[in-house]
Amino acid sequence: METVRVALDARAYPVHIGAGAIDAQALYRPHLRAGRIAVVTNPVVAALYLERVKAALARAGASPAIEIVVEDGEQAKSWPGLDRVFDALLAARMGRDGLLVGVVGDLAGFAAAVYQRGIPFLQVPTTLLAQVDSSVGGKTAVNHPRGKNMIGAFHQPAAVIADVGTLATLPERELRAGLAEVIKHGFALDAVLVAWLENNMERLLAREAAALTHVVRRSCELKASVVAADERESGARALLNFGHTFGHAIELGTGYGVWLHGEAVAAGMVMAAELSVRAGLLPAADAERARRLIRAAGLPAVGPALTPERYLELMAGDKKAAGGRARYVVLQQVGRAVLRDDIDERAVREAIAASVEGAPAAAVR
Amino acid sequence: METVRVALDARAYPVHIGAGAIDAQALYRPHLRAGRIAVVTNPVVAALYLERVKAALARAGASPAIEIVVEDGEQAKSWPGLDRVFDALLAARMGRDGLLVGVVGDLAGFAAAVYQRGIPFLQVPTTLLAQVDSSVGGKTAVNHPRGKNMIGAFHQPAAVIADVGTLATLPERELRAGLAEVIKHGFALDAVLVAWLENNMERLLAREAAALTHVVRRSCELKASVVAADERESGARALLNFGHTFGHAIELGTGYGVWLHGEAVAAGMVMAAELSVRAGLLPAADAERARRLIRAAGLPAVGPALTPERYLELMAGDKKAAGGRARYVVLQQVGRAVLRDDIDERAVREAIAASVEGAPAAAVR
Repeated sequence: METVRVALDARAYPVHIGAGAIDAQALYRPHLRAGRIAVVTNPVVAALYLERVKAALARAGASPAIEIVVEDGEQAKSWPGLDRVFDALLAARMGRDGLLVGVVGDLAGFAAAVYQRGIPFLQVPTTLLAQVDSSVGGKTAVNHPRGKNMIGAFHQPAAVIADVGTLATLPERELRAGLAEVIKHGFALDAVLVAWLENNMERLLAREAAALTHVVRRSCELKASVVAADERESGARALLNFGHTFGHAIELGTGYGVWLHGEAVAAGMVMAAELSVRAGLLPAADAERARRLIRAAGLPAVGPALTPERYLELMAGDKKAAGGRARYVVLQQVGRAVLRDDIDERAVREAIAASVEGAPAAAVR
Repeated sequence: METVRVALDARAYPVHIGAGAIDAQALYRPHLRAGRIAVVTNPVVAALYLERVKAALARAGASPAIEIVVEDGEQAKSWPGLDRVFDALLAARMGRDGLLVGVVGDLAGFAAAVYQRGIPFLQVPTTLLAQVDSSVGGKTAVNHPRGKNMIGAFHQPAAVIADVGTLATLPERELRAGLAEVIKHGFALDAVLVAWLENNMERLLAREAAALTHVVRRSCELKASVVAADERESGARALLNFGHTFGHAIELGTGYGVWLHGEAVAAGMVMAAELSVRAGLLPAADAERARRLIRAAGLPAVGPALTPERYLELMAGDKKAAGGRARYVVLQQVGRAVLRDDIDERAVREAIAASVEGAPAAAVR
């Protein structure tokens, strides 16, 4: 078992990572409180892990938990999904001395953030994406018909229990999508992680516990260092959006859910790397490294064949605009992302054109 | 114009108090941002003050504001009311660089707390209750069918602009209800304020600007000192609940809206003062002072004629229970409330019985 501490002054918390963590009652016990416990889960995860979480809580000495089962996937991240949680908590007379255990993260985290103005939240992520990304930073949200994650809060968990053993049951496509965020952490922040991934991708795809523990731990460490410096996402935290501006355009342009978030980010990272090359910041060989690693993870290295104009249109709401200037997260070198507002739009068009399905540049590489 | 600074470390903010504050563009200008401005109001307040707020914003150099009109009263403090705000903000493409101006506080404050995980909020309270209570402390919430204020967040405003001139249009009954919270601040925290109120109640009921400015300022100062010491309501902040445990029972037992919150708190304070006497903490003469001041403000000094058992039942969810022991905010002396968990339940029953409609004890005093 490894533990990463996310240092956010008064609200520092541990992320426990390892195979079997979900069963370790000692990880739950420090967070039990006087009041009730509720476990929020969905039917898929409940079938696989709810009994184990409940058993560990029982061994830790907790009273029986309120079980709240919400729908699977993005459709649960909505007001009706949230209201089902509130309704169950209120019906069970959960007070502010309660504890919410979220096996589905975003929805449960936001419910904990606003139920009676905030109750503690223990996060038990069972997807690679949740373990390497949502575990750190306290972002919680639900969707609005007009946009994803539009309603939310920053609410740091009391602790995160990330059991890489649970990744054994993760669908292949979701495992790969989670690896996109690991690759992002490497290219944006840590060249050593990139090299490690280049040498160990097969172990990850084979779901070796030690390899998974390594990338979850390193991802959490990297994200934690950024978040600690910038909890509210005003500066450094933007670097974690490497690949995301283009990626969001792909998700939006194809309709949410067609591409998984990680898949869109993967192709988006190639575009951002190509942009870095065209902006004169990065050697072309390093963009090629990104493309190769993304392919090795079984992720798409090209975006859908929309025109650069369409991409720019789709990115309009998302270019981290400050004072009207479009800002892009680009690479100065492998492992060092920077936020720039002086990127020529022509370079953006070229980077996109070179990185979509059927592009000659993409094809020859 | 007077200004009280609410000192909450990184999020300290000013409360500007005075007649005409709502028109003072200089109070708005420091809070304008790069993005859009939205004003959330209701039809009643909009008819009276929206044009003045808009004019002051325009003089301050703001671009035209998005106007969002929600229903009046508690029914707007619900998910549909909130969703109307989100929908208007998203339709107008309000970003995280926007500013929300709330002329109706609770709903707008919670919308600002969770819209895109939090945007700044400028509060322009136009009721005495909002000026002396909601202005300070950052509590925002909406109601759930199962309970009032059950869903919310702590979100400190960027600033509060409390124009006592707007109280000229406040219905008499709401003015008196607002005075209940002022009286509470006195009895719980400041004997000097109690004495001032005993000498100046007529000026307040006549809505003299100087007198209103005095009590709004003093209330904000008192509440700010408590909140600064205890932002998340774990300890000292409970003292601000003087009269509220009994008051909530009255609201709940009569059906929300039959008694105004301030009216219920007024009768609740008499019960809490009677309880303090019976617990041997307070001279009977001081409970009588509370009763007299409450009557002078035109507020009810007795609760509805429910049995003590019914009151206890209604208070069950609200007795600030910690480790199962019922806790009550009682007075050690005028201006000094304390939280006690060693109060005999018989004393509670007696205090209630002495302070309900038709009670002999209440009648003779």
